[in-house]
Amino acid sequence: MTVTLSFLERVQQIAEALLEAERGEPVAPPREPSEMARHIAVGPLDDDDTAGRTGLTCMAGVAPGRKGLAIEDVLDALERVALATPRTGTRRFFNQLFSGRIDAAAAGEMIASLLNTSMYTYKVAGPHALIETALTQHMARHIGFAHNEGEGVFSPGGSLANLAAMLVARNQAVPDAREHGLDGRRLTMYGSADCHYSIRKNAGMIGLGRRNLRMVDCDERGRMRPDALEAMIVGDRQAGALPVGVIATAGTTVLGAFDPIEPIADVAQRQGVWLHVDGALGGTVLLSRRFRHLVAGSQRADSWTWDAHKLMGVPLSSSVVLVRERGLLEKHFSEAAAYLFHNAETELDHGVRSIQCGRRNDALKLWASWKHFGDEGYAQRVEHLFDLARHAADEIESRPGLVLTCRPESVNVCFEVRGKPSEAICQALRVEQLAMVGHAEVGGRRIIRVACVNADMTTADIDAFLDAVEDVARHVRDGDNAL
Amino acid sequence: MTVTLSFLERVQQIAEALLEAERGEPVAPPREPSEMARHIAVGPLDDDDTAGRTGLTCMAGVAPGRKGLAIEDVLDALERVALATPRTGTRRFFNQLFSGRIDAAAAGEMIASLLNTSMYTYKVAGPHALIETALTQHMARHIGFAHNEGEGVFSPGGSLANLAAMLVARNQAVPDAREHGLDGRRLTMYGSADCHYSIRKNAGMIGLGRRNLRMVDCDERGRMRPDALEAMIVGDRQAGALPVGVIATAGTTVLGAFDPIEPIADVAQRQGVWLHVDGALGGTVLLSRRFRHLVAGSQRADSWTWDAHKLMGVPLSSSVVLVRERGLLEKHFSEAAAYLFHNAETELDHGVRSIQCGRRNDALKLWASWKHFGDEGYAQRVEHLFDLARHAADEIESRPGLVLTCRPESVNVCFEVRGKPSEAICQALRVEQLAMVGHAEVGGRRIIRVACVNADMTTADIDAFLDAVEDVARHVRDGDNAL
Repeated sequence: MTVTLSFLERVQQIAEALLEAERGEPVAPPREPSEMARHIAVGPLDDDDTAGRTGLTCMAGVAPGRKGLAIEDVLDALERVALATPRTGTRRFFNQLFSGRIDAAAAGEMIASLLNTSMYTYKVAGPHALIETALTQHMARHIGFAHNEGEGVFSPGGSLANLAAMLVARNQAVPDAREHGLDGRRLTMYGSADCHYSIRKNAGMIGLGRRNLRMVDCDERGRMRPDALEAMIVGDRQAGALPVGVIATAGTTVLGAFDPIEPIADVAQRQGVWLHVDGALGGTVLLSRRFRHLVAGSQRADSWTWDAHKLMGVPLSSSVVLVRERGLLEKHFSEAAAYLFHNAETELDHGVRSIQCGRRNDALKLWASWKHFGDEGYAQRVEHLFDLARHAADEIESRPGLVLTCRPESVNVCFEVRGKPSEAICQALRVEQLAMVGHAEVGGRRIIRVACVNADMTTADIDAFLDAVEDVARHVRDGDNAL
Repeated sequence: MTVTLSFLERVQQIAEALLEAERGEPVAPPREPSEMARHIAVGPLDDDDTAGRTGLTCMAGVAPGRKGLAIEDVLDALERVALATPRTGTRRFFNQLFSGRIDAAAAGEMIASLLNTSMYTYKVAGPHALIETALTQHMARHIGFAHNEGEGVFSPGGSLANLAAMLVARNQAVPDAREHGLDGRRLTMYGSADCHYSIRKNAGMIGLGRRNLRMVDCDERGRMRPDALEAMIVGDRQAGALPVGVIATAGTTVLGAFDPIEPIADVAQRQGVWLHVDGALGGTVLLSRRFRHLVAGSQRADSWTWDAHKLMGVPLSSSVVLVRERGLLEKHFSEAAAYLFHNAETELDHGVRSIQCGRRNDALKLWASWKHFGDEGYAQRVEHLFDLARHAADEIESRPGLVLTCRPESVNVCFEVRGKPSEAICQALRVEQLAMVGHAEVGGRRIIRVACVNADMTTADIDAFLDAVEDVARHVRDGDNAL
């Protein structure tokens, strides 16, 4: 309430400075941590508690001090930090599965932060509880869950959305698990060898054990082999395990591959195990007539993860976990809390279906953006990104110095520079402020992964990026990418 | 990158309209869900998929449509939603354990959303990785963890911070748990009867089972009884269970009570179990010379949860989980991911110590705010809030129509109106737009809980609130609060 509008003017100035800097230098100057610490230090340096901890000599000025600084100085510091931050919003950022900015989404996020409410009850979330319902139902409808069935809740990231789904799968298979704990039987779940590491991490967290997240072989494009899945389930069951669920990935982290949901659903059905689709990256293809064939059978899944902060371009995080059977989230996550949940009717008290209690508003930004684009506008955006990736693959194949790892199924394009180490190429691109891109491992080789996720990009940006790769490759030492 | 500055001007206008509305009507008009849906519907109404689902007749206009809306219309919609949102930032909001706004924090949050990076690696988080380190080390120092020991990571809310700590406790006691899963032994953890519901929920999630979260008796002020704790641990062990951890609460949800850490640490030490302190609400007393005696023994805990979005007033969420032994978070949460973690040196790659992968920036807002206030400014804020609560208690005791539940230990004040039902009073206050406050259960009675967490409040606000309570009580039907 005491917020002053002058601070908003200063925020606008900082945003202006940031946009100006991004135009001039789309890749922020890379700095070693100790240099960065000196650069952003804004407080007294005499209070050097963290120096030894990190090996950084200037962390004291980064840490809060005993005395405060004037608000003007703090806002100046925010500007300095903003300008020193890696520029994920620019057309030279290919490093992660999110990028770009959308006006409506940014506005939604900023207003949500001013409103600062929590999403657990209709009483305090008000319209935002309705917005969350409208979005999750809209997503459930695109998956193909039956009319008025299915339910979902926002989750702080795809990893924790997967966690919630895996917990529901576990509890459905072992009905006593939530109340009495696991009973020592060996429970198993299944993901592809290329599934996201959160699946393995979650298996460790929910009491299965990471070793009981079984890795199913993939085909040459990185897609789970349903025959291998079924053989593994059958073998594990014969060995005395209790298979409880399979996680199909719609858009793997490195290759962007889509596991074939339809035949995997057949296996899951035959074997009586839960089917979760981790569509953190690829869920958005549901909106595209051209590409939703990649998730054919989507409606047969028991649960889904769908990140809007990836292909839908809204700020981190905006992840949703959805289950086909309405009521399961509440069944497995609700707790009595007389100080919080006052109504018998919990339709709009989304706290009863969340792994969290207090929960920030990750829905408004997506709502604003989706209202602006509509399903059709989002379909076009996704198709543009896929077309960019196809263009990148074509262009790589046409350049003799580059080697395409495989044809992309979605927005990730993996390749190498012939005879040059991928890691050094990525590093050189960053140091020379030409592009930010990451490397990964595929088939025993270290490759460069280009993520085409900023819809502002054009084919000219892709070409310029590949030109830059070839340029820096000339002065990078020779080397092989075999691991 | 294509973000336009004109949208920031519109955000500023919306903020101005919101602040104006908050001055005139600090409690937003309450609306039934169906009325709210009509009020915020901004799209075509012909696409009525969610109507039946929720029993709301106008959800279609809330859901995204096939076609998009002009950006101006979306921004207008955001303004309408903003004005219809419960006003957590005002001095009439006593309903939750967060409230108020701080310029520096709001600026930090808005800039973080524009920067839109993820906190997992130094490569993409840059200065924010340093800021997170500086903050968590500063917090560890206030807890009293040894110099350069202790580590922490931001977590999306106190519930999930508690989850991370409980997982570390479980894995330390059952070293095979993460790799091979739980072995069927009955594991137990201990919290007070008044501990937060996330502890029970987490026990269900991590495979212990909710029944094995054992509830320890409290004294008359809601503080865990160490003797009862020890007796329970001993008894459970004799019955064949493996006790793994105790959770002390620093600031319970309803009474704001502080479990006595020092004697609980003695029990934990004697019994060889992990000690976690859930200081989501009360951790901030560590900054106050006047009140840090409430958490005497803090440095003896193995782990801590500390929410900055409660008493430190920054936007949701800003929670930290801290462990005393450096390296434990990485030990129990790191995963190999060649596509993400490129460095052998993971000091600043905070993803290795998080339960998440992609993770929004919850640190910058706290950094900006803490830089502005300094430790001393924050101490004063906390002490002001405690003084407000004491004033409220005095005032309640001085008014014959009101009954204080017990003297407050911190910022929560619980009371009843003699002969009037608490629930109806809360409802009347909200409908008449006088205040937003919640009710809870204490000692078999339904009481009103006033959370004094907005540091802009003065004793005059407290008095005005109590006047309003007495006013509405006159026309609320008689009734008792016995449950």
